[in-house]
Amino acid sequence: MDAIGIERGREGPRLFEVPKPTPDGGEALVRTLRVGVDGTDHEVIAGTHGGFPERDDYLVLGHEAVGVVEDPNDTGFERGDVVAPTVRRPPESGTNEYFERGEADMAPPEETVERGIDGAHGFMSEYFTSPEAFLVPVPEAIAELGFLLEPISISEKALELAHASRSSFDWESESAFVLGNGPLGLLTVAMLVDDMRVYCLGRRDRPDPSIDIVESLGATYVDSRETPVETVPEVHEPMDLIYEATGYAKHAFESVEALAPNGVAALLGVPEPWTFELDGGRLHKELVMHNKALVGSVNSGPDHFRAAVDRLEALPESFLEAVVTGVVPHREFEQAFEEGPDDIKKAIEFGPR
Amino acid sequence: MDAIGIERGREGPRLFEVPKPTPDGGEALVRTLRVGVDGTDHEVIAGTHGGFPERDDYLVLGHEAVGVVEDPNDTGFERGDVVAPTVRRPPESGTNEYFERGEADMAPPEETVERGIDGAHGFMSEYFTSPEAFLVPVPEAIAELGFLLEPISISEKALELAHASRSSFDWESESAFVLGNGPLGLLTVAMLVDDMRVYCLGRRDRPDPSIDIVESLGATYVDSRETPVETVPEVHEPMDLIYEATGYAKHAFESVEALAPNGVAALLGVPEPWTFELDGGRLHKELVMHNKALVGSVNSGPDHFRAAVDRLEALPESFLEAVVTGVVPHREFEQAFEEGPDDIKKAIEFGPR
Repeated sequence: MDAIGIERGREGPRLFEVPKPTPDGGEALVRTLRVGVDGTDHEVIAGTHGGFPERDDYLVLGHEAVGVVEDPNDTGFERGDVVAPTVRRPPESGTNEYFERGEADMAPPEETVERGIDGAHGFMSEYFTSPEAFLVPVPEAIAELGFLLEPISISEKALELAHASRSSFDWESESAFVLGNGPLGLLTVAMLVDDMRVYCLGRRDRPDPSIDIVESLGATYVDSRETPVETVPEVHEPMDLIYEATGYAKHAFESVEALAPNGVAALLGVPEPWTFELDGGRLHKELVMHNKALVGSVNSGPDHFRAAVDRLEALPESFLEAVVTGVVPHREFEQAFEEGPDDIKKAIEFGPR
Repeated sequence: MDAIGIERGREGPRLFEVPKPTPDGGEALVRTLRVGVDGTDHEVIAGTHGGFPERDDYLVLGHEAVGVVEDPNDTGFERGDVVAPTVRRPPESGTNEYFERGEADMAPPEETVERGIDGAHGFMSEYFTSPEAFLVPVPEAIAELGFLLEPISISEKALELAHASRSSFDWESESAFVLGNGPLGLLTVAMLVDDMRVYCLGRRDRPDPSIDIVESLGATYVDSRETPVETVPEVHEPMDLIYEATGYAKHAFESVEALAPNGVAALLGVPEPWTFELDGGRLHKELVMHNKALVGSVNSGPDHFRAAVDRLEALPESFLEAVVTGVVPHREFEQAFEEGPDDIKKAIEFGPR
């Protein structure tokens, strides 16, 4: 079958042939519908994140997938069920406590592999197999956008951790600041606008489709070149919640100053090492005197995917149409990896439902 | 009546005469038994923290108090009840949402005064008055150590915030690292040793009574001069929980590296501004990839005092005897502010129960 991935010693993503997988006991065979492309894919292609499976010189890409059960095998699914797979699987060495209690998203990197990212083949192929526990049912009505469930689930988890961190008191969360106007940032803005005043940080000039989306959702675009993160309380308002999806390490620390008293910043970016100066005394004191919190968050689990299903069903159609700027047939996969100025979220289509 | 405090333009704590207070409606008159002295008192005396009440040129010190109800007035207390007062009161401008919902500890500094610290007279006087809602009943058996309830309540709140931040998943907290071997650090070590492997950071040479206390509790003393915070995972083990009570800003950031995956550091120190270099990229990535959290915590509320009552009742007598290194009559108050090498926790006694 066709697969899209990277090969050791060769440049860029390629289309190649791999054997069609056979489901093991407890696994279903899934026919791939669509697979989203995101920044992590580009990092994997560039070789700055993730890695090849132990015994292979290639890695099938893709961690944002939706498919149709082709062979339920001995799982509880039926042929034709639409499903989205979670990303983490037990490492070669076998399962561990995190997988045993259904919290693979809390496993440290050395106790998990990530399909399409680190140590395990992803979903950018005509078929894939997966254990039942890692497949989340997707309603037919949102099947075509099912590749958005993984990124939404990432935000579900981060927001869950953020809210948990504020659960021991009566937290009034009215203002949110999303750092980053990529697909993850825009999805998160859309997830928050019904309940909060939302601001979104970017560094793009108008006219720009992502700025249009921010504003059409009723959120406020903040240009980091004019309004640095730490000045936002003065220019706009202090933020009860900050969601960082930039990978720009200074923002993680600047967010402490942008938070309102008792606020929390959820950090999701994965920067490279970067040494810089900061007023650590001031930040430390700010965290303490105003009961502020920083919570890091990575990956997501089946419960977050299930929450993402509800969330995706509720997002406005016009927003989703604006965010998904391209769905390309899998033989034209190169287009899905191009990053043009008007591109936001693109996906690769392997077959019709 | 006698009071101990600071006067504008004069050095150090002094004994002076103030009018005996009369309880307003809803307030009880309390005869002071004992008042603890801590690092915050020294900061207030030095003028680096807190401030005088708006209309006075003096500030009565003391925020760690226990007393006996002398005149219940129209409260639900009875004459002779032992009580400990919480520290925060509404500002001159009147009450606000935080006080209205019983969460004064979550108020930003500008929406509260702190008795004995910032903007309101403390409890180092023969009598004080307090609204009923800010007085927590203390069992007679622990009346003499009731001045420890405030510091214990500070840790109760910080641990509550830390645990809340980990409540959205199955957190296995087995190892704890208390940064600081002052009274607050030692009390926290004692609070944690029954449930976790506990390490305590200090920078003192042996023999030292605080090191003896750490070890007699079954915890491990870590000398920061030999074992810097970020090397602790290698030398000892990664820490599920870190409790920072040093006010040394670098520790707040180094703690990210000392945490185990999914760990949380509760920050309580209040440093001055201090600019230094750090690898912010590495710390940001660590927070994200291992789902780590930093939570700041300040002050405590009536519920934390109530939890502190249960906690104080359960602490070993030998530990408490070792920690309280001096209780001096109020006319000899100077001794309570001296910081000798063998001093740990000292209190001023205003009268017998």
